Amino acid sequence: MSDEHDIDPHGEVSVDRIRLADEYAGESARHGAVASTDVAEYAMRLGDDALVLAQHLGDWISRAPELEEDVALGNIALDLIGHARSLLHYAGTDTGRSEDDLAYFRDEPDFRNAWLFEQPNGDFAHTIARGLVASVYLVELYAALTESTDLTLAAIAAKSAKEVDYHRDHAIQWTVRLAGGTEESRRRMIVGIGDTWPYVEELFRDDELVERLAAQGVAVLPSSLRAGFDAMIADVFAEAKLELPTGRHAYIAAGGGRQGKHTEHLGPLLAEMQVLARAHPGASW
Amino acid sequence: MSDEHDIDPHGEVSVDRIRLADEYAGESARHGAVASTDVAEYAMRLGDDALVLAQHLGDWISRAPELEEDVALGNIALDLIGHARSLLHYAGTDTGRSEDDLAYFRDEPDFRNAWLFEQPNGDFAHTIARGLVASVYLVELYAALTESTDLTLAAIAAKSAKEVDYHRDHAIQWTVRLAGGTEESRRRMIVGIGDTWPYVEELFRDDELVERLAAQGVAVLPSSLRAGFDAMIADVFAEAKLELPTGRHAYIAAGGGRQGKHTEHLGPLLAEMQVLARAHPGASW
Repeated sequence: MSDEHDIDPHGEVSVDRIRLADEYAGESARHGAVASTDVAEYAMRLGDDALVLAQHLGDWISRAPELEEDVALGNIALDLIGHARSLLHYAGTDTGRSEDDLAYFRDEPDFRNAWLFEQPNGDFAHTIARGLVASVYLVELYAALTESTDLTLAAIAAKSAKEVDYHRDHAIQWTVRLAGGTEESRRRMIVGIGDTWPYVEELFRDDELVERLAAQGVAVLPSSLRAGFDAMIADVFAEAKLELPTGRHAYIAAGGGRQGKHTEHLGPLLAEMQVLARAHPGASW
Repeated sequence: MSDEHDIDPHGEVSVDRIRLADEYAGESARHGAVASTDVAEYAMRLGDDALVLAQHLGDWISRAPELEEDVALGNIALDLIGHARSLLHYAGTDTGRSEDDLAYFRDEPDFRNAWLFEQPNGDFAHTIARGLVASVYLVELYAALTESTDLTLAAIAAKSAKEVDYHRDHAIQWTVRLAGGTEESRRRMIVGIGDTWPYVEELFRDDELVERLAAQGVAVLPSSLRAGFDAMIADVFAEAKLELPTGRHAYIAAGGGRQGKHTEHLGPLLAEMQVLARAHPGASW
């Protein structure tokens, strides 16, 4: 692959991205690793976070405020689909399901994403605020998960870490740009952050599953990521001259997204994502 | 850029794609070239073809029959946005408008895309049929346009040629796969081709503008691309055991898309694409 890039770094990029997605999905297949029920559930949480956010971001491809942003948000969406494919592929090994089975043929209560990821795009500032929280969290998560004793998770995390690092740069740049732009852009950024922050806390909740897996060195305890998240957000907010929202937390009912309880926003997203595959089971008719 | 790929061909891909889009748009800026009115009109035709098709394909990001296809169609959409950006950037030099001005602040009668590109996604087979016609045409076009005496157009064509070559491979593979799949997939592929073929002829029409520009070695006469198109399609159809549709041509009213006359499908697409930019002129509020 590097050879082709040496010959021509431009023309081959899209082909490489397809290959990349295949390699990602093949990560666990090549290892021949089969996830335990606990590990499958954990991988599903991570995979659903990425999948659901990717679906939302894909909608920006026709709607960004600049053509350049179409490309940037589209790329982030495609990166996340790549992460979702590998994580869901691994999650499916426990029950013999493919990543497509998991993406297209599960119903809402079987999705394990946190509420943050299913929150709607809103305006561009809302999308950036959601992306900021997601990417700062994911950078911390994947960095820690590269140390997992589960080699498949560690390999997926190592590859994904570099991409979410770029996603974080993108979100930080836009947060600072909107906060320091016009009065209107600053107002919108503040509203976007205020509406997003109630969903922060769920990301850092521990529960029995992650405690069991963390004890084996497989999973990362969400609560252990909070300090790194807070420090990075504090830096960004200082640069953007923004204040941390306080006092608003969503009531995360009955265990929240990790237990399959979702807000009203997930259903329509899944309906749109799943309609074609369900109309024609077997994918290619 | 190659160096980074040597170090790690995976992690840097999305960053490279952003850079790539920037370089594309910068192609004419770097040359400092300003398009004449004729050249600007020609570049706008090509740019609008790419832009409108990209918008349609972006919708597949949440709706493809396989996660792998989400990535493939998303990549094709992003490639096309890249082509559109450079072509529209160049087109705008004539009147001092940016590519974003042209994409977001022109009304339907000012769009110059051929009718093929604005036809709706339909089912997956329709999207593939449209993509087959588009990519076979674009491969011929960009290959010939690399010889243009206009160095900006030649440079854009050279870069885009490699990408549309990949898009063509993708469309051919799916055409053959669907035509040779189940009875249902074959039936759908045939319907998709039948509904798409009426829009083929417009692509190869000459008019005064291209004749003037071709005389200067700037543009490629559309009619000169027809033989190569037909030969490639004949090969694909032979492999897919499909018959060439005959006798159905759309009535391309009053000069068709190249003169700003469009089918009912362009309006809703533009509305969706332009709503955010128009609600907030100045792009970043």
